Amino acid sequence: FKEQGVILSSLLTHSLNIRLVNVQPTLGDSPYGSLWPLPQKVQISTVVFKLSGASFHIFDAKASSSGASCRLLQNAYRRYDEYIFTSSRKQGQNKSKKALASDMSELQVWITSADSECDSYPSVTSDESCEFTGMVFVFFHFSHLADTLIQSLETFSQLVYKDEYGAKSINRTDIHDFPRFAHRGLLLDTSRHFLPIKVILANLEAMAWNKFNVFHWHIVDDPSFPYLSRTFPQLSQHGAYHPYTHVYTPSDVKMIIEFARLRGIRVVPEFDTPGHTQSWGKGQKDLLTPCYSGASPSGSFGPVNPMLNTTYDFMSMFFKEVNTVFPDAYVHLGGDEVDFSCWKSNPDIQKFMEQQGFGTDYSKLESFYIQRLLDIVTTTNKGYMIWQEVFDNGVKLKSDTVVHVWMGNKVEEELQKVTEAGFTTILSAPWYLDYISYGQDWQKFYRAEPLSFKGTDAQKKLVIGGEACLWGEYVDATNLTPRLWPRASAVGERLWSDRDVRDLNDAYSRLAKHRCRMVQ
Amino acid sequence: FKEQGVILSSLLTHSLNIRLVNVQPTLGDSPYGSLWPLPQKVQISTVVFKLSGASFHIFDAKASSSGASCRLLQNAYRRYDEYIFTSSRKQGQNKSKKALASDMSELQVWITSADSECDSYPSVTSDESCEFTGMVFVFFHFSHLADTLIQSLETFSQLVYKDEYGAKSINRTDIHDFPRFAHRGLLLDTSRHFLPIKVILANLEAMAWNKFNVFHWHIVDDPSFPYLSRTFPQLSQHGAYHPYTHVYTPSDVKMIIEFARLRGIRVVPEFDTPGHTQSWGKGQKDLLTPCYSGASPSGSFGPVNPMLNTTYDFMSMFFKEVNTVFPDAYVHLGGDEVDFSCWKSNPDIQKFMEQQGFGTDYSKLESFYIQRLLDIVTTTNKGYMIWQEVFDNGVKLKSDTVVHVWMGNKVEEELQKVTEAGFTTILSAPWYLDYISYGQDWQKFYRAEPLSFKGTDAQKKLVIGGEACLWGEYVDATNLTPRLWPRASAVGERLWSDRDVRDLNDAYSRLAKHRCRMVQ
Repeated sequence: FKEQGVILSSLLTHSLNIRLVNVQPTLGDSPYGSLWPLPQKVQISTVVFKLSGASFHIFDAKASSSGASCRLLQNAYRRYDEYIFTSSRKQGQNKSKKALASDMSELQVWITSADSECDSYPSVTSDESCEFTGMVFVFFHFSHLADTLIQSLETFSQLVYKDEYGAKSINRTDIHDFPRFAHRGLLLDTSRHFLPIKVILANLEAMAWNKFNVFHWHIVDDPSFPYLSRTFPQLSQHGAYHPYTHVYTPSDVKMIIEFARLRGIRVVPEFDTPGHTQSWGKGQKDLLTPCYSGASPSGSFGPVNPMLNTTYDFMSMFFKEVNTVFPDAYVHLGGDEVDFSCWKSNPDIQKFMEQQGFGTDYSKLESFYIQRLLDIVTTTNKGYMIWQEVFDNGVKLKSDTVVHVWMGNKVEEELQKVTEAGFTTILSAPWYLDYISYGQDWQKFYRAEPLSFKGTDAQKKLVIGGEACLWGEYVDATNLTPRLWPRASAVGERLWSDRDVRDLNDAYSRLAKHRCRMVQ
Repeated sequence: FKEQGVILSSLLTHSLNIRLVNVQPTLGDSPYGSLWPLPQKVQISTVVFKLSGASFHIFDAKASSSGASCRLLQNAYRRYDEYIFTSSRKQGQNKSKKALASDMSELQVWITSADSECDSYPSVTSDESCEFTGMVFVFFHFSHLADTLIQSLETFSQLVYKDEYGAKSINRTDIHDFPRFAHRGLLLDTSRHFLPIKVILANLEAMAWNKFNVFHWHIVDDPSFPYLSRTFPQLSQHGAYHPYTHVYTPSDVKMIIEFARLRGIRVVPEFDTPGHTQSWGKGQKDLLTPCYSGASPSGSFGPVNPMLNTTYDFMSMFFKEVNTVFPDAYVHLGGDEVDFSCWKSNPDIQKFMEQQGFGTDYSKLESFYIQRLLDIVTTTNKGYMIWQEVFDNGVKLKSDTVVHVWMGNKVEEELQKVTEAGFTTILSAPWYLDYISYGQDWQKFYRAEPLSFKGTDAQKKLVIGGEACLWGEYVDATNLTPRLWPRASAVGERLWSDRDVRDLNDAYSRLAKHRCRMVQ
């Protein structure tokens, strides 16, 4: 978006060649500077303080319940100190410089909760609200969790700007902030194309800059199985693109989870069954249903075989491992797009259908499988998320299930139904970022409103958030980051800021600056 | 495209969210390996030679008319040696290794023309045909120009592959090759977003890998004027995004031209007038037409002012400089999309129209300007290219003018008209690569056929090629390369290979491998 204000007059260029152009908003100066997403309440005064790289530091207030032993805090202090001062610290510095009266020399972090939860993981119930007052001494007050701090430091760093002489400056600012939605996710797909760890880490950083707090890791799918399972190493051995260069080892996974945790981000893995499992079949004999061509097996395989006990033994052991590897309270179980043609072709399945009294309704067979899977996962004490089809097919779900709405048609109806049934839900339908188009499509993502469906207040409360999805058909390490950002930022603000924050011109101005900051 | 063969089965994924998907071709193995673009005639035998990094070298045949003093050749030898052996040379090597009988140990370059043209620039009349026979000793025979060699070395390097043990191998191959079209261009736009030199150089490299031979440098436009003119330094001083960080200095330009020359690529700059000149007006007083709002100037400016003598004095001096800075025989003069509203508002222009007897036909005024500009450029002995409007408006053109067809509607009609009038032409209408869409849109670019219009053989011969255009509205250093490649490769093959080379499956297989090679 850099400098696009200047190019408005050239919009006509060669426009006859094109069918459709998004309206170009005006690039002015937002009264909110480069804040992104916009906090719930902000008051920026005209009083300016300077920040000296030599004297400014972030530290724990004396009365804070958390201190130097909290790795999460110390990590965040260092990170934001670096963001704010990187370029100026490179030059000669004089640590002994005394702070002037107009300098902002300290940022005190004051956590008032008894349990700072420094070593725990963020969760959907984390209280992310915060309040801070910018004075010569800045105080952050947190009533609850340490990971809120990360959001606040991000906001603080966004308030720092260079004045005309390049001096780091900040206006006295009062902020009261909290997210509109608790679940602000981003889906990355590491099955269609393997994503190197550094790409994932870079995007976790970008997520934190946009206050996303859930990394939905669509880790395996039909094309490949890069998750290295301790219990079933043959899955990635045979199902990954390469058995050791294109896998995520247990320590890779651990590193990603910790990197995310330090940025207030949950990692929710998705192990999608019974469809989308071609790669599972390569390492696990008899897991998938053999398809038939006439009277004999065709050699190809369909969804997970729902009639064998071995299938459920396998799933029990597999999800027991998943439960220990991924600390988040939720796992995503998929359940989307099950193709019935293979099941229909298989005479054993036909027989099983008869025995169970399913007639020819294969969605009953699908539900039969999913029901048993959910029971298995429930025993591991994990909550689960599922794609909307599982709900649509009438599978019995635990009350804390999160139903993931993704289908592009009848979105509002679906949200209405799901919440009417009392389930929490997250929305992705308007935010399939792999679908690219010419021009400023961030506006389309930005305009989407998750609560525009008809329903009671209680129903609306069940919409706990949404996720931007970047499926991997046409995305790999070479193009992921520039394709995702700043388009995903639009979703970030929609999920964090107040419903009424929808001024495209104001958003454009802040987003342009936010984008430059991310590029830097 | 990496590994997409594996993901065919997952095409259904979440497809309800999407309206349109391109058909996915099958990813098999092409009999032509990873050759891209496909040569005119290839015969690959099953006889395999090995290439040892220790003993293989490229050198001038004794009888060659060109040798060690030819910088272009020596540079190309080194470059391709590096492409072929980079990874293996890194490891321990033994330069004293003796070549085995089955080794290919030499690539002799034999240029038979009297004038190797080592120090000259490629031109539209360059003979790019070549023939080579792969034996234990490889000979390249060139009847004409040194820059052909670069194309041949590229082809040679594409024939080298790793066998199952990782050993560099090449099959005995006979090739007779020449491009279908002489003008195979790529347009980059450095005005809407400034492109750092390294981005331009990287894309010149990629162009060479795809046998593009014209870099159409759309260097200035409304948004910014990054070209640092020696004669009129105030143009970039005031018209660039930044007067010295966002400009191309004379030595930058020189370096880009030389880098391109060493890869057989012409650099054709575009200085578009009389429209698209907002940035020119910032540094050059009175160059643009003042727009009026009622009886008084509105403060904004329109196209170049065609009624002042100072305008033509300026253009004379400016294009005299352009002629010395850019060695290519052609310059692109633009001439597209002139907005008449400002001219119409200006009372002096109205008076001038009357005096000239133009009535209210402002395209006559446009033609008046362009005619004088073309006369000026003609005195510098440069040929010129212009966008199609200039031809459409009936401006008198030199017989060697290249008319650039870009408008998306009535493309075939336009080609017919232009060639009927006897002008050479190049096509860009189907190849606006800045218009992105979901999926494998390279197929759309690949399918386009420049000679499908109705016309005589003589008319068809006037179509000398085409250009892929990447306009800069939404492109900068952060996303240019992954957005452009390998999509532009599709255009590269269309412009180089035989008309009948259009098998999508075969192309997909070669392109997937070619893409991996480019990524490496």
